[in-house]
Amino acid sequence: MPILAVDAMGGDSAPGMVIAGLDIAAERHPNARFEVFGDAVQIDELVRLSKRLRNRVSIRPTTEIIPNELKPTAALRLRDASLRRAIDAVANGEAAGVISAGNTGAMLALAKIVLKTMSGIDRPAMAAIGPSARGDVVMLDLGANVVCDARNLVEFAVMGELFARTVLGLPHPTIGLLNVGSEEMKGDETLRRAAEALRESPIGPQFRGFIEGHDIAGGTVDVVVTDGFTGNVALKTGEGALRLVGDLLRRVFSANIASRLAYLLARPGLTRLREWLDPRRYNGAVLLGLNGVVVKSHGGADAEGFAHAVDVAMDMIVNRFNDRIRDDLGRHADRERLASDAFRATPPASATSVTTG
Amino acid sequence: MPILAVDAMGGDSAPGMVIAGLDIAAERHPNARFEVFGDAVQIDELVRLSKRLRNRVSIRPTTEIIPNELKPTAALRLRDASLRRAIDAVANGEAAGVISAGNTGAMLALAKIVLKTMSGIDRPAMAAIGPSARGDVVMLDLGANVVCDARNLVEFAVMGELFARTVLGLPHPTIGLLNVGSEEMKGDETLRRAAEALRESPIGPQFRGFIEGHDIAGGTVDVVVTDGFTGNVALKTGEGALRLVGDLLRRVFSANIASRLAYLLARPGLTRLREWLDPRRYNGAVLLGLNGVVVKSHGGADAEGFAHAVDVAMDMIVNRFNDRIRDDLGRHADRERLASDAFRATPPASATSVTTG
Repeated sequence: MPILAVDAMGGDSAPGMVIAGLDIAAERHPNARFEVFGDAVQIDELVRLSKRLRNRVSIRPTTEIIPNELKPTAALRLRDASLRRAIDAVANGEAAGVISAGNTGAMLALAKIVLKTMSGIDRPAMAAIGPSARGDVVMLDLGANVVCDARNLVEFAVMGELFARTVLGLPHPTIGLLNVGSEEMKGDETLRRAAEALRESPIGPQFRGFIEGHDIAGGTVDVVVTDGFTGNVALKTGEGALRLVGDLLRRVFSANIASRLAYLLARPGLTRLREWLDPRRYNGAVLLGLNGVVVKSHGGADAEGFAHAVDVAMDMIVNRFNDRIRDDLGRHADRERLASDAFRATPPASATSVTTG
Repeated sequence: MPILAVDAMGGDSAPGMVIAGLDIAAERHPNARFEVFGDAVQIDELVRLSKRLRNRVSIRPTTEIIPNELKPTAALRLRDASLRRAIDAVANGEAAGVISAGNTGAMLALAKIVLKTMSGIDRPAMAAIGPSARGDVVMLDLGANVVCDARNLVEFAVMGELFARTVLGLPHPTIGLLNVGSEEMKGDETLRRAAEALRESPIGPQFRGFIEGHDIAGGTVDVVVTDGFTGNVALKTGEGALRLVGDLLRRVFSANIASRLAYLLARPGLTRLREWLDPRRYNGAVLLGLNGVVVKSHGGADAEGFAHAVDVAMDMIVNRFNDRIRDDLGRHADRERLASDAFRATPPASATSVTTG
C-alpha cells in the first residue's frame, strides 16, 4: 500500500487545490494513502467534501508555513512547517514519498538535509518530462546544481535513464549530453570527460553523445543530461517559446469571424495539440538521488496538474524507483572497480619504461 | 559608399544562393558595393544574370574553400580560401565588413586573428535577433565564448545595448542578465559580480537585473546577456520548440477537409504569424567587438535569408557601429577611472587605522 506524504500548504491556491488534486489522483490510485500535513481545520473541511478521500487521508496538523519568498536557510529553522513535517515523514518511514507545490529552494534544501543523498550519489538532480517531436523526453538537472562536474553528469544520466524506464515505460531509453555542438571536440573538459565515462559505462550502448538545444524538442534522445544552470534556462526558454506561439495563435483565431469559424473547424486537432503541449501534463519535477521519492508540483498548478504530479510520485513508489537506482549504481560501481583492477594489474607504460630504463 | 566583402563559397547552396541573396539586397541598399571572393568563373556567370549586380560587384578570384567540417586550426592554414581573403579585405581597409554563410568556427577564429579584438574589449561575442511577445530581442553571446567572466558579460551588455539601438532602432534598450532565478542571491559569483558592475555602469538605468529563460520569448528586456554556452543552448532550444509547434500545426491543418478549410479561412493571420516567426527574418548573427563588421549567415539560408543578413551588415556599416562602440567603451572607461580616482583620494579605512594606530 503506497503512502504519500503531502504538503497541503504549498502552492498559490493551497490547500484547496492540493486536496482537489488528491481527489482526482485518488481515483487513479485506488490503493494509495495520503498523510496530509497542514492546517487541520481547513484540510478537514476540504476532505469531508470528497467521498473518495475520507478514509484514505490522515490529517497531520502543523502550525507553520514556508512562504514562497523565504530563503532556504531561514526555511530550515521552521521545524513545524507543513513541508518540513511531510519530508520528516519520509525520513521516519511513515511514507515512501513526499509531494509539495511550495517553495522549491526550501524543498531542495530540506530534502537534502533530512532525507540525505543516496549512497553512491554525489548530488541529487531535478528531472522533469517535456514534449518532443517523438514523444516525451526527460531532462535533468533542472536547477538543483548550478555547477556540475563530470561525475555528477554521469550520475544524472544513470538516474535519468532509470526514470525514463520507470515513468515513461521505455525499455532502452537513449541518452544525450547537452552541448553547443555535436562534434566530439565541442564544449569544455567536464563535458568531454563525462561523455568518455558514459561511453565506457553499462549504459554506454544507449548513449548518443553530444546533442544541441534543438534536439530537446526534436526528440533526438529520450534523456537529456545537463548541468542545473543550463537545464533550468533551457526548460524555461522552451516553455517561453511555446507560450509565445500559443498566445499568438489565440490572437489569430479571435481576429475576425472567418478566423473564429476556422477555429471551430480545426478544433478537434487544435484541442489535441493544446492538450498534448499542456504544461499540466508535464507537471511534477522529481528530485532524484535522495533516500525517498520527492516530487515538486508547480506552484501555479491547478488540481489537474497537481494530480499529474501525484501520478509521477506514485509511478516511482510503485515501481520501487529508489531500490532499482541502488541496483543500477551497484552495476556502475562494479564496472569501475573492474576497470581500476585492470589498471592495477597492468602498470602504465611510463612506469614500465622507468624501471627498464 | 559602403563596401561589403562577401564569401561566395560558404553555405549549403553556395555560390548560387549567395549571389541571389546579394541581388535581393542590392535593391534595398542602392549605394552598396560588394567585393565577392570565390570561384571567378561561377561567380561571373551568376552576376551576369543580374542587371542590378553587374556594376556593383568586384569579383576577387580565390582558389581554396573551407569545408564545413574543417577544424578552425586547419582552416587557418588555407591562405587563399574565399572566407580568409574576404576577412583580409576588411583588415586591409578594402571593405567595412564581411559576410559568410560558411564554417562558423573557422569564421570566428579567422576574424579574431585577422581583424583582432577592438581595444577595450577582452573577447568578441556573437549576437542575433529573435522574436518575443513585445517585438524583437537581441541575445548574446551565442557561442563565441563557452566560458565567460564578469568583465566579459559587462562588455557583452555594452555591445548588445548599442546593437539594439543601431539595428532595432530602440532609443533606450533594456538589458537583462540570464540566470536561474530573478532573485539577487541566485546564480554564481560571476553573474552576481557582473550584475553589480552593470548597475554601476553608464547603462545602469537600462539594466533590469536577472531574468530567466521564459523572459527571452516573453520580451521582458530588449537585450539578453549570457555566456556563449548558455546562449547557444537557449537559442537552439527556443528554435527547436518553435519548429515543433510549426510541424504539429501543419499536421493539424492537413488532417482532413474541415481542417484544410479552416486553414484557408485563417490564412491571413496564420501567414502573418509564420512570416513573423520565420527564421529567415532573424538570419544574420554578428560578431561584435572586432575591428570590422562581421556577419554570419546560417549555412542553410536561402537567398531571402542571406539578403536579411546583408541588411544587418549594412545597418552596422552605415550607422558606424564600430566607431560608436569605441565611444561607448570610452564612457565606461571614464566612469571606471573616476571610480578608482575617488578611491585613491580617500584611502580605505583599514589603511588609515594602521597609520593612526
